[in-house]
Amino acid sequence: MTLPVIAVVGATGVVGLEMLDVLEKRSFPLAELRLLASPRSAGKKVRFRDEEVAVEPLANDSFRGVDIAMFAAGSDVSKEHASKAVEAGAVVVDNSSAFRMSPGVPLVVPEWNASALDGHAGIIANPNCSTIILIMALAPLAQVAGLRRVVVSTYQAASGAGRAAMEEMRESTRCFLEGRSHEPQALPGSLAFNLFPHVDVFCEDAYTREEDKMLHETRKILGSPELLVEATCVRVAVERCHSEAVTVELDRSLSPEEARAIFARAPGLIVRDEPGDYPVPAAMSGQDDVAVGRVRESRVFDGGLAFWLVGDQLRKGAALNAVQIAELLLAKIDST
Amino acid sequence: MTLPVIAVVGATGVVGLEMLDVLEKRSFPLAELRLLASPRSAGKKVRFRDEEVAVEPLANDSFRGVDIAMFAAGSDVSKEHASKAVEAGAVVVDNSSAFRMSPGVPLVVPEWNASALDGHAGIIANPNCSTIILIMALAPLAQVAGLRRVVVSTYQAASGAGRAAMEEMRESTRCFLEGRSHEPQALPGSLAFNLFPHVDVFCEDAYTREEDKMLHETRKILGSPELLVEATCVRVAVERCHSEAVTVELDRSLSPEEARAIFARAPGLIVRDEPGDYPVPAAMSGQDDVAVGRVRESRVFDGGLAFWLVGDQLRKGAALNAVQIAELLLAKIDST
Repeated sequence: MTLPVIAVVGATGVVGLEMLDVLEKRSFPLAELRLLASPRSAGKKVRFRDEEVAVEPLANDSFRGVDIAMFAAGSDVSKEHASKAVEAGAVVVDNSSAFRMSPGVPLVVPEWNASALDGHAGIIANPNCSTIILIMALAPLAQVAGLRRVVVSTYQAASGAGRAAMEEMRESTRCFLEGRSHEPQALPGSLAFNLFPHVDVFCEDAYTREEDKMLHETRKILGSPELLVEATCVRVAVERCHSEAVTVELDRSLSPEEARAIFARAPGLIVRDEPGDYPVPAAMSGQDDVAVGRVRESRVFDGGLAFWLVGDQLRKGAALNAVQIAELLLAKIDST
Repeated sequence: MTLPVIAVVGATGVVGLEMLDVLEKRSFPLAELRLLASPRSAGKKVRFRDEEVAVEPLANDSFRGVDIAMFAAGSDVSKEHASKAVEAGAVVVDNSSAFRMSPGVPLVVPEWNASALDGHAGIIANPNCSTIILIMALAPLAQVAGLRRVVVSTYQAASGAGRAAMEEMRESTRCFLEGRSHEPQALPGSLAFNLFPHVDVFCEDAYTREEDKMLHETRKILGSPELLVEATCVRVAVERCHSEAVTVELDRSLSPEEARAIFARAPGLIVRDEPGDYPVPAAMSGQDDVAVGRVRESRVFDGGLAFWLVGDQLRKGAALNAVQIAELLLAKIDST
């Protein structure tokens, strides 16, 4: 086996840095790591394993010799550069929303639909962060009992909007505590002891694009084009970890006890569910697993369930899932 | 007309002080205001209109000559003292949960079920804060289109747990920003860039009592004992105002446009609903009205709706609603 050359595009962003951390922690086998970013960040050094790796400016010839290109730099960059990477012979794992809903582009949560990778055409999409966290609990339920309707309200961390948003939340909160005023710039509103139901942009039907992603990406990943998913996406004063309050209608009734047992067996999902013991963002920050708790009988759907999810959206919701996809790609290369 | 004597029990708490502010702002007609509190707070002076009113210790004979006793001191105090107030000839407006579900005790949101006051036996209950805010949007929909199922996730402010909780949130956040550790005492967890799905105590079926209140009180107020209400109640890092993400199934379909028109006509409810313009806690703090926005077609219930509510839970969710009940009682006294 020849070790692969890996490129990380957007290497200095919050997701890019998290990818490097995950690659290192999982001892991802690689011959060379190439860090790419905007000219603004070029020249910076980033520590990986025991080396300082210089960040190079993303250019048209950046992907020569690259086996897997991990994109973590936003849709515009992916739209401009992913095809160049593919032409240069790389397989792209794209964390942006640019290609997720494109036919022929696998949208993958490795624990649940790894087979979607078969016959990919060079680009694999990493799903939306809130969607991945939701899938970790929905997929095992869908497999055992079939899903009909999902109602989900999110509590999304500032870091989901990038580093500037996270820093702005801290700064605006500091100003609030000191009685000084502060105008939000990175975020559409203040997170100083405040929150807002506005993640990504608004669409024509008054849903946001984030809410649309939770519908359409969930359908694609689960292979359930008829599944009904109602999402309300809310940005809250949390640094890391998205939380989700979920209610589901199932084809076949499940008791909370049965559901807990199903969740406990599901890969990448842990159960924290005693009265007074439930997952919270502060405890799940930096964790690879998604946690589920507050599992109870639904009061609106006969035989359905309500539960509470928390997952680190930079970890399983982004970087970890992307690296897991890259690991699957490596395994495929090895086996061919 | 003889002006009434009003007592406020728990006058130095967050809700008690808010009641005084509401009584003053609404120029509530009264002959005398009696402020009652625990011996710990007795002797404090509280400003009302242009006077400093001394706080008296709550005692067995505190209600002599009182016409309306407003209780804002928690269930234990209400359970011990409300009946004494009634025996002394007062009508009690109780903000605690002590009597809300008792048969014969009206549970009132004045805009919607004022007639429930008829034939009361001396105690009127003020509903739970999250429930009142929800009712302000559910009641007009129920009247026009009939309600079947409600799924609601809350985003509840620290002040809903009292002043100590609000101060603890500020202090823990300050510690977080300064890199110091902090142990929560007033709250079951930290609100320093964190949140938790835990409001009030846990019940046997893994629901919390707050979630039960939203089911049972909503049914009682709307007079709909079969209504299905699934609530997930979450405490968030917000000082004032509860927010709620709501999805409803209706008997008769309503379009978002029709719903906005219904909401716009509903008393005590304002509509803020343009892309990028929606209610948020910071903007609704201290406001009497509850605000609704993000009105859209439900994706799980045919002809149903999804929307977003924000209301100041100390104001309409507690003090204002209680004072409105007292105003109804005055009008009744006047008309008899």
